[in-house]
Formats: sequence, structure tokens, C-alpha cells
Amino acid sequence: MTSIGIVGAGVSGLHLGLLLRQHDVPVTIYTDKTGDELAAGRLLNSVAHHHPTLERERQLGVHHWDAAEYGYVCHHHYIGGPMPLVFRGDFASPSSGIDYRLYLPRLMGDFEDRGGRLAVQAVQTDDLDRLAAQHDLLVVASGRGTHGALFGRRAEKSPYDKPQRRLSVALWHGIVPSEPKGVTLNISPGHGEVVEMPFYSFDGHVTALLFENIPGGDLEMLADLRYDEDPQAFEQTVLAKLKEHYPGTYERVDPSTFAVTRPQDILQGALTPHLRADYTQLSDGKYALAVGDAHSVVDPLVGQGANSASYSAWTLGEAILEDLGFDELFCQRVARRRAEVVEGISDWTNFMLAPPPPHFVALLISMAQHQPICDEFTRNFGHGDRQWAMLATPDRTRTYLARNGVDMDALLASLPGAT
Amino acid sequence: MTSIGIVGAGVSGLHLGLLLRQHDVPVTIYTDKTGDELAAGRLLNSVAHHHPTLERERQLGVHHWDAAEYGYVCHHHYIGGPMPLVFRGDFASPSSGIDYRLYLPRLMGDFEDRGGRLAVQAVQTDDLDRLAAQHDLLVVASGRGTHGALFGRRAEKSPYDKPQRRLSVALWHGIVPSEPKGVTLNISPGHGEVVEMPFYSFDGHVTALLFENIPGGDLEMLADLRYDEDPQAFEQTVLAKLKEHYPGTYERVDPSTFAVTRPQDILQGALTPHLRADYTQLSDGKYALAVGDAHSVVDPLVGQGANSASYSAWTLGEAILEDLGFDELFCQRVARRRAEVVEGISDWTNFMLAPPPPHFVALLISMAQHQPICDEFTRNFGHGDRQWAMLATPDRTRTYLARNGVDMDALLASLPGAT
Repeated sequence: MTSIGIVGAGVSGLHLGLLLRQHDVPVTIYTDKTGDELAAGRLLNSVAHHHPTLERERQLGVHHWDAAEYGYVCHHHYIGGPMPLVFRGDFASPSSGIDYRLYLPRLMGDFEDRGGRLAVQAVQTDDLDRLAAQHDLLVVASGRGTHGALFGRRAEKSPYDKPQRRLSVALWHGIVPSEPKGVTLNISPGHGEVVEMPFYSFDGHVTALLFENIPGGDLEMLADLRYDEDPQAFEQTVLAKLKEHYPGTYERVDPSTFAVTRPQDILQGALTPHLRADYTQLSDGKYALAVGDAHSVVDPLVGQGANSASYSAWTLGEAILEDLGFDELFCQRVARRRAEVVEGISDWTNFMLAPPPPHFVALLISMAQHQPICDEFTRNFGHGDRQWAMLATPDRTRTYLARNGVDMDALLASLPGAT
Repeated sequence: MTSIGIVGAGVSGLHLGLLLRQHDVPVTIYTDKTGDELAAGRLLNSVAHHHPTLERERQLGVHHWDAAEYGYVCHHHYIGGPMPLVFRGDFASPSSGIDYRLYLPRLMGDFEDRGGRLAVQAVQTDDLDRLAAQHDLLVVASGRGTHGALFGRRAEKSPYDKPQRRLSVALWHGIVPSEPKGVTLNISPGHGEVVEMPFYSFDGHVTALLFENIPGGDLEMLADLRYDEDPQAFEQTVLAKLKEHYPGTYERVDPSTFAVTRPQDILQGALTPHLRADYTQLSDGKYALAVGDAHSVVDPLVGQGANSASYSAWTLGEAILEDLGFDELFCQRVARRRAEVVEGISDWTNFMLAPPPPHFVALLISMAQHQPICDEFTRNFGHGDRQWAMLATPDRTRTYLARNGVDMDALLASLPGAT
């Protein structure tokens, strides 16, 4: 009987483990923390689950927070500058933001209830050969520590050698939800973005504010501000920066109740996005396959990490269920099948971190003027490959806009400052 | 409006052109022969269309020869040697063999009736840049002449540097069809194979005999035998060789009526299988994409060429219909999407040309003893990727057989001569 070992109990490890358990495949997930430890810990992220990911949850029977109640239905956009652009894109089906300190422990429980083995132990990279000997296939689903480095960095798909944003995310009381309930994507040109997101956490329905601060900009200091040193100063500074840079969210803040939900509901840091090789051969000749953060690390700016990880895990799971061996042919198949989506998400996210080229400016203006274009951009948050197909080159955006009745070159020529 | 140019009016060029015409995409197919010239010419091949290819024909509305009437439903196997193996595998849905001198002209007519432009002109490789300038994408669907050489040979997927069989195929009267109506796959170890195939041609229902002769074997001379020099000697020699090497077919020959249908219904030659790069950049920066023989040339032994070509064309057509540009990103997507099937077919066919390794011997013996195994092998003629997944390594075949209740190692150990 096939036995699969998975290192890492994040969304990719759990979705994979649960899919395999639906088909009675023996699975062990190795993780360094219990669910209780995760639940008691610091905020892990503020990630969105978009419709395709929620559909996978439904197929796994782990969609415990009904998106109709806990989710949100649109993206509000507020693009600052001399002529602010304000517009809304609607999803076809809701997305959702659930605190992973609720989500992951619950799915760990589901996994164990369904016969999965959860081994709580620290796994060092040196241990992987030993673990591999106990399984037919070892899946590395954690980028933690040095595991990721097992899989070579793909330089041609990893354009950055340092973080493009310095991050500060916290959960907040005191922000009136947008109407309709949605994520608000605020851009402060040259300084960064704030993603304001309806979020379900220990305090119930709260708001996540993910500050994506451009190094050297006016907001970078938010990544260094220490809540523990002076909670009030932290909150007042955030409020002042919101007012100055992100009026689209600031206008819904109630200053009298605006406060971080709990001291541990803050996460600050930075990451260098990269794509790694899909698989590697271990010393006993077996292969280890990377999913999730071990394979693709994306900046959280457009909320794609969990969706990439879940898709990748699902694709791998289907291949495990149908194939006859876990050799290099198998690894190549998995790599090919997931590449369009995983690489599309990575390429698109990296594109969004760079200063916007003219064809993206044209798309943003077109979104403000044409609802179908804005809705499609919004829905493509569930289909990063399609988003990238639309943005990868100026020619592609030109063709896309032309099919939607917009003459990109005429639009760009009409802008102030165009020559 | 997108315009697609296709060089070559074989099955890949026509299936692609017809799919695009179903969606009103302007298409020009360049071909060096009219349908009438093809119809009047020499036998082109004796290729089978398996169920997935017939399904594509149905979707295109060009399934003119109903497989229920013109097709066949099984493979009879006759493996010679000291202990001949005789067994039958059944398709789930019929396959079909139609003379391409009927098939291609009919589809060329369909293509023109549906607004496709058929440009009958010799196209030299030097002309491709000029043609590309008239279209948004140029598809090279003909391996004829030097077109294929535009696309680099992929050495790691092209194990042979010379033909592995010398071929002689002709259409015959005087063979009573097998019961149920099927292809008979005869193997004469060390000498080659004959594929006996129900075939529909100008003389109605006839039989194609495709001799796949191993160089240096007793049957190689069949590839050199000239019908025109002495028709009777040709026919008598074929009959004698059938009797000696392929009793599974010989027993259904009526010597009094056994005869080549028409002098032009004979084709002799040899080919070196190879896989080429998926695409190349032309001098104006546009890309040309290879399909069919320009991309993958397979030996006809297991009747896969048309199926690979049709699948490849269909995958390309779907990508053309959904994508926004014909740049390298597009070419990479097409390459990835078709790789599993096209490479699987190529790898499997190349495997079948080599002396059978023990795990394939074990599979053949298991087919003779277990109907589900034999049926699955037979049905996988429509899914070369699945066949290859089963045969690519001894471990894979071992796992497959174990899942079907066969202990491969015990079986091999039980064979005479096993140590």
C-alpha cells in the first residue's frame, strides 16, 4: 500500500493529506506545532481563499465557515494620486478570509479524524532522507527553515533578490465594513498598498489591514513600529497613515473604537518571492516533491499564496491517486500540470510588485470605466493564470482591451503627460 | 481579427483548421497537393483512428465513416515463439481505419465549405517568414521536406538515429476478417511484426497488411520487393512469409483471391522516429508552432501517429481560441498541455520498437491470462500517455500488475530459462 509523508501542516499539506485520506491512502503529516500551539500563537497571515480554493474545501468536506456568511463578494479599489480612481469589481462567487489559527487546527483535527497520522516533531532537513525511507513519496510542504533550499531556486522565474515590500499586518476593531462587503485595495503610488480585508478571527468578524510598504517610502516605518512598546502610539500612527495615504479605508474608521484586536494579532516582516524547482532526488534515489511555500513563495499583496498552495496540493494529490509510481516521470507530470497556474500566480504577483507599466495603468483606468473588465480582473483573483495571460505583455493587454472595446493606445495617448 | 496560417493538410492541419472554423477564426491551409491529386496517388499510410480521435471528428462534424459500420472493436494478438500466445483485447468503443486518400480530400472539402481557405502551392522552408507575415500565427503541420528541421530535434526524447523497422504496407483482397472484427497484432520474435487491419478504401472493405520488418531479419526483404516488377512474385512471397511467420493472419487468407487491391495501394520505406522542439521564433519575431509530423514522428507500429497529431492540433486549437497572443508564453502553454500525451505516445512507441524487456514480457503473458489487463492495454491505444505510465519502468509495470492481482517477479521466475 502506498504511503505518503508530508512535511508541513499548512494549507497545502492539509489539503493534500485530506484529499488522499478521502481515498484511503495512508498519510503522515509532520509538523512542529500542535493545533493548540498554533491557535495560541501569533497571527500567521491574512490570506484570502478564493472560489476555486473554497470549492476544494467543499469537496474535502472542510468548508466550515460558509463563505455566504463569513466571506466577501467584491473588491473596492482606491487608487490615489492627482486623479484618484475609485471603482468596484464583483466576484461571481464569494471569497473568504479566515484566521489560520482557527483554520489550520480545525483541518488538522479533520485530518486525524479521518485516519491521517499527525506527527508533531521538529523535522530538520537532515531528517528528510530518514523520513523518505518510511514512505513511498515525501512531499515537502513547508518552506520553513532550510527545507525549501533542497529545491533549487529558478532564477528565470525569481526576478527579485530582496523583498519588494516591508509588511505589517494586524487585525483591527473599529472599521465599518465596506458595502457591499469586500476587500478594499488601496494604492498610494510610490509608497505602497494597504489591503483591507474582512477577516474572521478569535474576536469574530474583524478587519485585517495588510500594509505593503515600499522600502524607502513614507510608510516603511510601519514595518518597524513596535506595538508592544507603545500600543497607543502604534494605533495612532496607523490611523494617521491611513488618513494620509488610504482615504478609501480611513473614511470607514471609527477612531473611538479603532484598536488592534489582541497583542498577538500583529505580524511584521518581509519576504523575497521566489519559485523553486518542483522536485529533487534524495540520497536513496527516491524523489521529494515541493508544494506550497517550499515551491513558490509569493508576496501577499494580491492574496494568492494559499490559492497557489491549495491548487498545487490538489494537482499533486490527483496525480498520486492515478499514477503507478513516484519516479521522475511522475514528478515531471506534476510539474507540468500545475505550472500554468502556479507560475501564472507567481509571475502575476511579481508583476504587481513592480512600478506599474503603461499597459497596467491602461487596464486600471479601463477597469474604472468598464464594469465587465473590472469584474473579470476581480474574478481572476481565483485564476492567476488567466490574470497573467492578460498582463504578461503590453500586446496581450492591448488585445484583451480591444476585445472589450477599449483602444489601449488611444487611452494612453489621452493621459495628462502623454506625448 | 486573428488569422492563422497552417502549412500542411494532413490530419493535424485539417483538424486544427476545422476546429478554428467552428469558431469563425480565419484560417488558411497551405498544401502542395489538391484533394484530387491525393486521391489519385499512392497509399499514404495505414493509420488507425482511435476513440478519442473519432470523438474529435464527431465534434467537428466530420465523422463521415461511422465507426459502428466501418470500424473495428478489438485487437487479436498472436505472439509467435516456442509457446505462442493468442489472446484478444476489446475496445470500449470502436477504432477505425479509413484510407487517407478518401479521408483527407473529404475533410479538405469540409474545410473549404466552412469558409477555410485552401492554398495549393508548394511551400519551401524559405517561404515561411513570408507566410508568417500574413498571419498572427504560423503552424507547421507538415514534416515534409525541410520544414521539420526548423524545430530542433530533442535528443533526450529521440533514442534512435536510424529506422528500427523497414516497412512494407499494402491493401489486400482475400483475407477473411477476424471475428469479432479487429486488428490482428502478430509478432515474429526477432523478425518483426505484421499489423493486419480492417481498412476502408477505394475498393471498399479491404485488409491492410503493415509489415514492420526488423533490419537483418528474415522479413526485411519485403521492404525491397517490387510489386511493379513482378506482381505475382510479390503476392506469393508475401503469402509464404505470412505462412511462416504470422499464422494468426495466414489462417484466414484465401490463396485463390489473395491479391493487392491496386498497384498504387502499396507503400514501402522506413523512418527514424524523433521528437522535435514545440516552437521556434521566425526572423520577424513571430513564433511558428509545430504539430503532427513536424513535431513528432512515430513509427507506425502501434498506430499512434494520427492520434498524436489530432490531439496535438486540438490542444493547440483550444489554446488559440482562449489566449490573447501568440508569443512565447502561448507556445510554452501549448507545449506543456500536450506534452503528456504527445510524449507519452512517442515514448511508448519507441519502447515497442526495442527488444522486449522482461517487464513487457510479463505484461504480455498477463494479458493472455487476465482479460481486464488485456482490455486496458487495448483501450490505452487511445491513451498513449496511460500506456506509457504503465510501461515506462519495471517498477511501474510491477505496481500495475500487482494492482491487478499478478506478482510480476513470481511470473518472470516461473518462465522457462529463468534462473
